[in-house]
Amino acid sequence: MNNKMIAYILGWVLIFEAALMAPALIVSLIYREQAGVFILISIGLCLAAGFLLRWKKPEDASIYSRDGFVAVALSWVVISLFGAVPFTISGYVPFYIDALFETVSGFTTTGSSILTSVEALPKCLLFWRSFTHWVGGMGVLVFLMAIVPLAGGTNMYMMKAESPGPVVGKLVPKVKATAGLLYKMYLGLSVLELVFLLAGRMPVFDSFCTVFGTAGTGGFGILNDSFASYSPYVQVVVALFMIAFGVNFSFYYLMVQKKPKAAFGMSEVRLYLIVIVTAITLITVNICTAGIYGVPEGIRQSLFQVGSIITTTGFASADFNLWPSFSKTILVLLMFMGACAGSTGGGMKVSRFIIWGKTVKKELYSLIHPHSVMKLKMDGKLVEHATLRSANVYLVTYFLIFAASLLLISLDNFDFTTNFTAVAATINNIGPGLEVVGPTGNFSQYSAFSKLVLSFDMLVGRLELFPLLVLFMRSTWKD
Amino acid sequence: MNNKMIAYILGWVLIFEAALMAPALIVSLIYREQAGVFILISIGLCLAAGFLLRWKKPEDASIYSRDGFVAVALSWVVISLFGAVPFTISGYVPFYIDALFETVSGFTTTGSSILTSVEALPKCLLFWRSFTHWVGGMGVLVFLMAIVPLAGGTNMYMMKAESPGPVVGKLVPKVKATAGLLYKMYLGLSVLELVFLLAGRMPVFDSFCTVFGTAGTGGFGILNDSFASYSPYVQVVVALFMIAFGVNFSFYYLMVQKKPKAAFGMSEVRLYLIVIVTAITLITVNICTAGIYGVPEGIRQSLFQVGSIITTTGFASADFNLWPSFSKTILVLLMFMGACAGSTGGGMKVSRFIIWGKTVKKELYSLIHPHSVMKLKMDGKLVEHATLRSANVYLVTYFLIFAASLLLISLDNFDFTTNFTAVAATINNIGPGLEVVGPTGNFSQYSAFSKLVLSFDMLVGRLELFPLLVLFMRSTWKD
Repeated sequence: MNNKMIAYILGWVLIFEAALMAPALIVSLIYREQAGVFILISIGLCLAAGFLLRWKKPEDASIYSRDGFVAVALSWVVISLFGAVPFTISGYVPFYIDALFETVSGFTTTGSSILTSVEALPKCLLFWRSFTHWVGGMGVLVFLMAIVPLAGGTNMYMMKAESPGPVVGKLVPKVKATAGLLYKMYLGLSVLELVFLLAGRMPVFDSFCTVFGTAGTGGFGILNDSFASYSPYVQVVVALFMIAFGVNFSFYYLMVQKKPKAAFGMSEVRLYLIVIVTAITLITVNICTAGIYGVPEGIRQSLFQVGSIITTTGFASADFNLWPSFSKTILVLLMFMGACAGSTGGGMKVSRFIIWGKTVKKELYSLIHPHSVMKLKMDGKLVEHATLRSANVYLVTYFLIFAASLLLISLDNFDFTTNFTAVAATINNIGPGLEVVGPTGNFSQYSAFSKLVLSFDMLVGRLELFPLLVLFMRSTWKD
Repeated sequence: MNNKMIAYILGWVLIFEAALMAPALIVSLIYREQAGVFILISIGLCLAAGFLLRWKKPEDASIYSRDGFVAVALSWVVISLFGAVPFTISGYVPFYIDALFETVSGFTTTGSSILTSVEALPKCLLFWRSFTHWVGGMGVLVFLMAIVPLAGGTNMYMMKAESPGPVVGKLVPKVKATAGLLYKMYLGLSVLELVFLLAGRMPVFDSFCTVFGTAGTGGFGILNDSFASYSPYVQVVVALFMIAFGVNFSFYYLMVQKKPKAAFGMSEVRLYLIVIVTAITLITVNICTAGIYGVPEGIRQSLFQVGSIITTTGFASADFNLWPSFSKTILVLLMFMGACAGSTGGGMKVSRFIIWGKTVKKELYSLIHPHSVMKLKMDGKLVEHATLRSANVYLVTYFLIFAASLLLISLDNFDFTTNFTAVAATINNIGPGLEVVGPTGNFSQYSAFSKLVLSFDMLVGRLELFPLLVLFMRSTWKD
């Protein structure tokens, strides 16, 4: 393994993190908050460690599959470890494990929180907390690769390890160019949302933080009641943008290329939209017949919650803990489905469900016709054997990690629904679950041990299981 | 498809069912119960329909893969439809859907019940109810094939469709001989348990019904409190026999063949025993430190519940609903694991977990070394690609059916834990779940629609998903 090159990349990541903290420092200056000092110290720490690690560029800059996975996994661990520092040294989150949980939750765009009152935090820390969503959404290394020529032509392995979804679609042949394009579209959509929010008279600070949470499909709110007290206009704008950020970015690339037919022909995007419309309809009928809302508000609440959960954002405009069981179950199932591959959303991804549906059909067909060979296609292209296998093994791995996590956190003696949805909400990078960890609750009551388990789940979920597990393989560290 | 041959097999199944009802008729004579009349009528119905269907043996007796799956799936549906008749016509379970649920639960060895008081049933009906467990445990068609030469040399397809586990181990080359051997061992173990129970002064009727429930890993009790009021001796005997019936029957075959080394070398059996010992230890510590029991009783309660749940039997000697979250979570996870392949137990099977563990390891290895080829072995034998694929697709299918069932039954507006464990308890053929469907509760409060959904889950779980789904494929019915 190319240890020197991995250290070099980690060094870059830390320097990059220092740069990312700069906007929060500016916020502290604007609002004249003393907590800015602690952000400055954290920047210093990142720079010191960063420059130490990337002292000199290794002669051998080649990165292979294994190095790529390790570099990506460690980058996410390191950026979280340092990102948590300002919360703890400022004294606002005195316990470091709590700060780490919060930061992992930020970068992985989960949005689960241990804070009992977000409003108690100074604006600069709130800004940093929300900004981690924006950075994590499209990928830390993808961002870095768009700017810094890290490892020549072998960046693809890192892109593969960090990008969500069963297949990595390079938009253009070069990785650097693809990363750049992705960030341009990401920035464009973010600015668009900002304009809409400001037009709706949302305060500037709130608008920025909301955009970060929406774009990264993160979910950290800056008010204790998340989105319940914002105007219906703001709720609808945010709901629509959440759904937009859950769309596969290849869709937008095709649209920019003026190929709307190809864009709307993407089976993943189509299924994603069909599921959203169906879920909104079913929940609206369910909550309105239950007499909780009138029809117009029912539609809006349903739209907001479905958009928030399927994209794994996790904003809440209502306490869906109080909704009927059918609506809650739909939301729990959407937690698992998640958004499109190649979006900023988490979860298992819609395209995996398409692949799974096809493999089940194929298996049944092969039972009926044992000597037949059936090839699987998606969007007209043959699905490779390795992709199929990987999608299936993904579920197996997911299932095993889920079971282990559930068992470990059950030691805290919360009820089954709380524990189950806590794991679901973290591994799928959503944010809130049900009961104790429901939209009006938080994760503060879990023990430090459980918080570490759930932090692991957030990271493992964001990186789609394998990169982080590679760290625990003996053969990774053997040459 | 060979429709005539399938009809012929179904005819045999019904005649066979008539014969299986005969012991219950004898019970009614012994206890002079009037309900015997209704069993007699049901026998008549089975015989009439059976002889009609197998009027003459088709000239073409060949059964291929597709026919095998359809024959097995329909056999289980038909035997349940007719098996429910005595409950309804006798008036003890007036609503036919309820009777069907109870009968499906019996044959699939689930043990979930809609009865609010089992003690209200006459003994002959209780006997029939428990006897369905014994019949379903080893397989209806396996039983039939051991006696009747159904379809010449092509029985293998049916055996494959009905036998639990990812790989079908024929003990000896001939299917009929294998089926016969299995039933001899099954009968032998059952008689052994009967002797132990009678020696513990359990009443004769109770002993018989208990043996049926244990051997089939079914779980129907004949007392309202399941096993709580039986003596510690009886509880321990039943616990040990439950565990014994969850062992792969190849193990016993090897033991009979005097090959103990090969028997104890079976990795599935070893993991199964390791999991049981670990679970008992953890739960004992958990419930004893929680102060619910003293150590000796804690061990016994833990042994009984772990044995009952991992083998998917479902007897209960305590209301584990009241246990701490950690113990409950272990039990819920054991519900999914289930017993060994080639046993009478349900669930996903221990051997699938072994295969899954290996595929995950292989996938990670292939990420680190993309050009390597790693072969998977189990017990020294190469695991075939088709077996691996099938085990993975099994989980995908399982997951999709589970999600759909959860959504459908949530319409009844029970809490999430109840619904989740209701689906888990039925698809894994266990019996009780948690909360409303916990050990002291039952399934009577679910709507008729939910009962049908859960009946489907029991059948689909018992037949390991694919055979029943084949019925719903369009290409099954196309020539």
